[in-house]
Amino acid sequence: MAKQVKEMLSWYTGESPGILTNLARMLNHGTLAGTGKMVILPVDQGFEHGPARSFAMNPPAYNPQYHFELAVEAGCNAYAAPLGFLEAGAAEFAGEVPLILKLNNHDVLLEEKDPYQAVTGSVKDALRLGCVGVGYTIYPGSAHRLEMYQVLREIAAEAKDVGLAVIVWSYPRGSGVSKKGETAIDVTAYAAHIAAQLGAHVVKVKLPSDHIEHDAARKVYEATKVPIGTLADRVRHVVQSTFNGRRIVIFSGGAKEEDKVVFDEIRAIRDGGGFGSIIGRNSFQRPRAEALEFLATVMNIYAGKVK
Amino acid sequence: MAKQVKEMLSWYTGESPGILTNLARMLNHGTLAGTGKMVILPVDQGFEHGPARSFAMNPPAYNPQYHFELAVEAGCNAYAAPLGFLEAGAAEFAGEVPLILKLNNHDVLLEEKDPYQAVTGSVKDALRLGCVGVGYTIYPGSAHRLEMYQVLREIAAEAKDVGLAVIVWSYPRGSGVSKKGETAIDVTAYAAHIAAQLGAHVVKVKLPSDHIEHDAARKVYEATKVPIGTLADRVRHVVQSTFNGRRIVIFSGGAKEEDKVVFDEIRAIRDGGGFGSIIGRNSFQRPRAEALEFLATVMNIYAGKVK
Amino acid sequence: MAKQVKEMLSWYTGESPGILTNLARMLNHGTLAGTGKMVILPVDQGFEHGPARSFAMNPPAYNPQYHFELAVEAGCNAYAAPLGFLEAGAAEFAGEVPLILKLNNHDVLLEEKDPYQAVTGSVKDALRLGCVGVGYTIYPGSAHRLEMYQVLREIAAEAKDVGLAVIVWSYPRGSGVSKKGETAIDVTAYAAHIAAQLGAHVVKVKLPSDHIEHDAARKVYEATKVPIGTLADRVRHVVQSTFNGRRIVIFSGGAKEEDKVVFDEIRAIRDGGGFGSIIGRNSFQRPRAEALEFLATVMNIYAGKVK
Amino acid sequence: MAKQVKEMLSWYTGESPGILTNLARMLNHGTLAGTGKMVILPVDQGFEHGPARSFAMNPPAYNPQYHFELAVEAGCNAYAAPLGFLEAGAAEFAGEVPLILKLNNHDVLLEEKDPYQAVTGSVKDALRLGCVGVGYTIYPGSAHRLEMYQVLREIAAEAKDVGLAVIVWSYPRGSGVSKKGETAIDVTAYAAHIAAQLGAHVVKVKLPSDHIEHDAARKVYEATKVPIGTLADRVRHVVQSTFNGRRIVIFSGGAKEEDKVVFDEIRAIRDGGGFGSIIGRNSFQRPRAEALEFLATVMNIYAGKVK
Amino acid sequence: MAKQVKEMLSWYTGESPGILTNLARMLNHGTLAGTGKMVILPVDQGFEHGPARSFAMNPPAYNPQYHFELAVEAGCNAYAAPLGFLEAGAAEFAGEVPLILKLNNHDVLLEEKDPYQAVTGSVKDALRLGCVGVGYTIYPGSAHRLEMYQVLREIAAEAKDVGLAVIVWSYPRGSGVSKKGETAIDVTAYAAHIAAQLGAHVVKVKLPSDHIEHDAARKVYEATKVPIGTLADRVRHVVQSTFNGRRIVIFSGGAKEEDKVVFDEIRAIRDGGGFGSIIGRNSFQRPRAEALEFLATVMNIYAGKVK
Repeated sequence: MAKQVKEMLSWYTGESPGILTNLARMLNHGTLAGTGKMVILPVDQGFEHGPARSFAMNPPAYNPQYHFELAVEAGCNAYAAPLGFLEAGAAEFAGEVPLILKLNNHDVLLEEKDPYQAVTGSVKDALRLGCVGVGYTIYPGSAHRLEMYQVLREIAAEAKDVGLAVIVWSYPRGSGVSKKGETAIDVTAYAAHIAAQLGAHVVKVKLPSDHIEHDAARKVYEATKVPIGTLADRVRHVVQSTFNGRRIVIFSGGAKEEDKVVFDEIRAIRDGGGFGSIIGRNSFQRPRAEALEFLATVMNIYAGKVK
Repeated sequence: MAKQVKEMLSWYTGESPGILTNLARMLNHGTLAGTGKMVILPVDQGFEHGPARSFAMNPPAYNPQYHFELAVEAGCNAYAAPLGFLEAGAAEFAGEVPLILKLNNHDVLLEEKDPYQAVTGSVKDALRLGCVGVGYTIYPGSAHRLEMYQVLREIAAEAKDVGLAVIVWSYPRGSGVSKKGETAIDVTAYAAHIAAQLGAHVVKVKLPSDHIEHDAARKVYEATKVPIGTLADRVRHVVQSTFNGRRIVIFSGGAKEEDKVVFDEIRAIRDGGGFGSIIGRNSFQRPRAEALEFLATVMNIYAGKVK
Repeated sequence: MAKQVKEMLSWYTGESPGILTNLARMLNHGTLAGTGKMVILPVDQGFEHGPARSFAMNPPAYNPQYHFELAVEAGCNAYAAPLGFLEAGAAEFAGEVPLILKLNNHDVLLEEKDPYQAVTGSVKDALRLGCVGVGYTIYPGSAHRLEMYQVLREIAAEAKDVGLAVIVWSYPRGSGVSKKGETAIDVTAYAAHIAAQLGAHVVKVKLPSDHIEHDAARKVYEATKVPIGTLADRVRHVVQSTFNGRRIVIFSGGAKEEDKVVFDEIRAIRDGGGFGSIIGRNSFQRPRAEALEFLATVMNIYAGKVK
Repeated sequence: MAKQVKEMLSWYTGESPGILTNLARMLNHGTLAGTGKMVILPVDQGFEHGPARSFAMNPPAYNPQYHFELAVEAGCNAYAAPLGFLEAGAAEFAGEVPLILKLNNHDVLLEEKDPYQAVTGSVKDALRLGCVGVGYTIYPGSAHRLEMYQVLREIAAEAKDVGLAVIVWSYPRGSGVSKKGETAIDVTAYAAHIAAQLGAHVVKVKLPSDHIEHDAARKVYEATKVPIGTLADRVRHVVQSTFNGRRIVIFSGGAKEEDKVVFDEIRAIRDGGGFGSIIGRNSFQRPRAEALEFLATVMNIYAGKVK
Repeated sequence: MAKQVKEMLSWYTGESPGILTNLARMLNHGTLAGTGKMVILPVDQGFEHGPARSFAMNPPAYNPQYHFELAVEAGCNAYAAPLGFLEAGAAEFAGEVPLILKLNNHDVLLEEKDPYQAVTGSVKDALRLGCVGVGYTIYPGSAHRLEMYQVLREIAAEAKDVGLAVIVWSYPRGSGVSKKGETAIDVTAYAAHIAAQLGAHVVKVKLPSDHIEHDAARKVYEATKVPIGTLADRVRHVVQSTFNGRRIVIFSGGAKEEDKVVFDEIRAIRDGGGFGSIIGRNSFQRPRAEALEFLATVMNIYAGKVK
């Protein structure tokens, strides 16, 4: 096995061999196998934002099988989706790409000040579908955050008990944070740290801006001169905040953007020591051929094959 | 078995043979057996709107046995009802028509801004009564929607575990949607998608209007020119939104209407690739003979025997 | 994924995606990945025959890590062993080779006329250790066989529930069969069929001789002229008896033999349509370099690279 | 065993030998082993205040392994942290320092008038990680306090059942107390008493000021002339309030302060009969060498080696 | 922590930190702390052979507290006993010596050809009493051996789940082995191997003679020239058979012997790479002062302080 992957697994010593095996399955799969970097395809957009907003710009993506094919052909390390999408393809694509069952979900049919998510799948479902792990979203900053932490803790305990990896989407949101604060560097680093403290094996956060949300934090950032000037700096700080790089932290981009912008972000993640990306809308909201080319470039940047 | 049914069952590969068997029982029963189309008779009106509002215009319909007979004689693919109605006839009509136990219900004795439903039956009841599946209503848009999703998830897991099909009534309602928005095309497609993501084998929604509720959605519908001009267009969009047609989605009509209107709707469902109808009030709120004739026409349209 | 593997997985339609995934993990791993053939390294000899009789001729094999390394370097499809041997390496070798936890074991410290085995591990252990499946031995012909079938059934049900593959060692033995009958063609075919009927995904039997144990069987073999003259004929008959080739059946050789003999057996398995071999003593009872060369030849025969 | 430790264990007669063993493991470990005094390193700051505010002033402290090393090298009696931090080092440092799993946690991403904490770990986790005890925070004064007491009671019962020690952080906070009241002598003594009444084996409170929060209490303090003039007096009163010294009560300092101030506080704790300190920020927020020297001085004061 | 202990714990990678912690507690306790060698005091003689046969030659040993004191004063790594003896002292001696609860026991009030043992304690008892591990005896060679393996497996799974170490006494006995065969080198090595395969962390066997019990084994020992001439050779072979030294295997002496004989055995264990001794009758069947001197000499031999 690649030395880099061995090294990464050593950070999880004490976890069961089953968990290590499932982490290794992701790290050793696809184009980036063995590099220690990961690109995950997540498709929960249909649930989160509605089908037309997610797929109308690339109608084949309405079909759940499309995403399995995209993840396989692009050589993604894993494909993450809610129950229905996985159930609609896990048998046909068995063994072709590591799967992550996203266990909670949210829709935008009601806007809440303090969002929450519904638990829409179970650890048992993940085993039945042959997944390598389960995904769960927390909203630090929401009035419901403490309950979300507790439910995550219970689900994570159950998942670990059967050898599944735990991937946590940590998205600050709710009445505790301003809109701008949702991606503030202090808040993002904090959100990543909380996810790791809750026992996540892999943490997913948004790319942070250079905004600092909390005054108490700003004083420290200024006094200790934490470098946050460039995106790479900020990625490095998030990695540091996630157990000094001893937990895998990956980044999502959010809405569809110009390719050049995304590629620059990938370079910053790579240069800042981030472990990879979770790229949904920028992948499946364009024609397959373009998506494959786009993802190939992303992976080449991570693999150091292009600058 | 009809090739069309085989094809439809293939969309559920990965589900247990028991589930496939129960789906096949519906698809291979009655007048539309083997066509891939379904007409289901649902009678939860008494609970939902009160008995007089439901049955006074056709008093034999107060009798639960009436609906079994109607479903059998009309050759419906299934008959769906709450616990009491099924208990009052399941023995006498055992084996004559596939049954669906509607597991949650709501009354209008208290109007809430954010409706919820009571769980009024169990998977165990469904087995005891010889049902092929269970039905559950969610209200996307209600403040209680996340809890409803969670309860559905638990019930669906239990039902699948014992080989029952899961039919989800997905009705947008509550403080998150306007009255007009309840049948908006974007909201309806979204509601169908959510039900499928929650693991529904069969999804039931209302026929959508051409209203678009959300601005964020409107932008996409316009930019990508999603055709929603005709009812058939809109049905096609809902089918697409329900896993690109890989989950059975059927439509309800709502209040009693003129027959011509209903027949046009059926044609639109058929032409738009919908899988059938669930027809309550338009069936049982008229004399039996008329109802049988009405349903025969509906089925003939679906079967392509009349235009 | 290789067409051959897809085809083989289709024989298990109706099993959960998790089971298909774990079967695919074996079929897609190592030197024979994608060929539809399997070579599994089993090391339960230490428990079954004692450590010196198993490892003294190649002392590095006393070390549990040796066998992980051998399976990885040789490119075996899987490595099967009892609890202790897997616990002593599953973390260090996480993700490097599919593991099968052998769930029951037997020693030779007491010779019984009717042998039985102790259950020495659990499905929970298999998940904890990251295994793709569990192994279980039955002794058709032993007075305890019916109890063994029942325990297998319970374990298999539990394993399938969590997506693990079930591999059954079916070894006729006990007061019901003569020594010669243990590998008789009728008995071997019967043993393979029983394992498949008990729900095994993969069946392992010994290579059959042309002896026919039972008179009632002999009459049929002669009357219907079942070809059993060559080893390939007999392999073909066993494959046929194992659901006409719709269940994977692999063969073990037994005690260490001359290489030429083994290679001829491999050719017969290949030519008779067998799916592969489980090779213990002939692998680990010789120096590592020789073992790797030996296994490479075996795999080349299966892959059709050498005649 | 040291006479002093024997004496202290005698206060817990009636508790199981497992609990006594785990208390003894703390009391007999490290620099203060056998003295009856304890210095515990707690690192839940990252969760409670965010990573940068906790570790930016001493970046090696971002690494979870740093804190294990610090606790070991400084000879602390125990190291207390949330799940993630313990999981990230418990295997590598197994047996090197007694561990306490902090079972509930809180963040500052949303400021509540009445704070609560999420349960982020379990007694089962504590056993899995080899801990000697579990920690739990209560907020006397918060509107949620009664629920917190109840959850503590359940967790404590479960912990005691498996022989783990129960350490309670008792921090008055919430709408029931003024800011100044949070460390008032009457409130602190009350908080310590409540923790002991809830079954805590070890109680942790903040050092009390000479403020008296409640009028009803003030009357008594004045009438009975409770000495609260010096910090040592106040410590003595808290010890007295915690079952007259028959439960171990230790003190936390809070934010980083000048060393001289801390050392004077340690002397006051010692002279007032307190059992030790839990020192987080003053330990890990300075370079390792300085931290070791600082902690050595603290321990020397407790051990009576320096005045 | 001593490098030797770190190295030994690395053999158990994949086991939980709790298990590693309890192994470390034994390895780091007492006179031999940190040397990688262990001397355990076992006192189940009273149950096994009756009180007078066990204690009449040193009456203070009738008192359960005597054995705690002996283990503490001698600096043994652990003290192992049945439920009653531990219950009678675990509170008073809490934290003074690691305890092992011997979970099954046997008496000689009925002599059976095929011995079995009664389960006389539980994992829950072990937690309640503050033990570091549980002990269990198997009798390879007994007609009940398979059942004993199964019960051990269940108990071991439960113990590992809560972080306790599993120590297996593997004593060949019963109708499958001759009296001489009980300590035959082939049988002893086999018994140690089986215990390790069953998941034991620590294996205890008797010192082997140079007798070879089984013809099939003799052929291999002779053909491969396994050195078994000296006791050190035989210890080396047992260590090799116990996962090539990756599981701790310790040796018991049996009946009281002349000191010189015992010391020579200790030297042979040390020189053969054995990990230590479990010494009952030779310790507690003589006056305390003599026992302490005797054990000191044993430990000095292990520590290499005397030849």
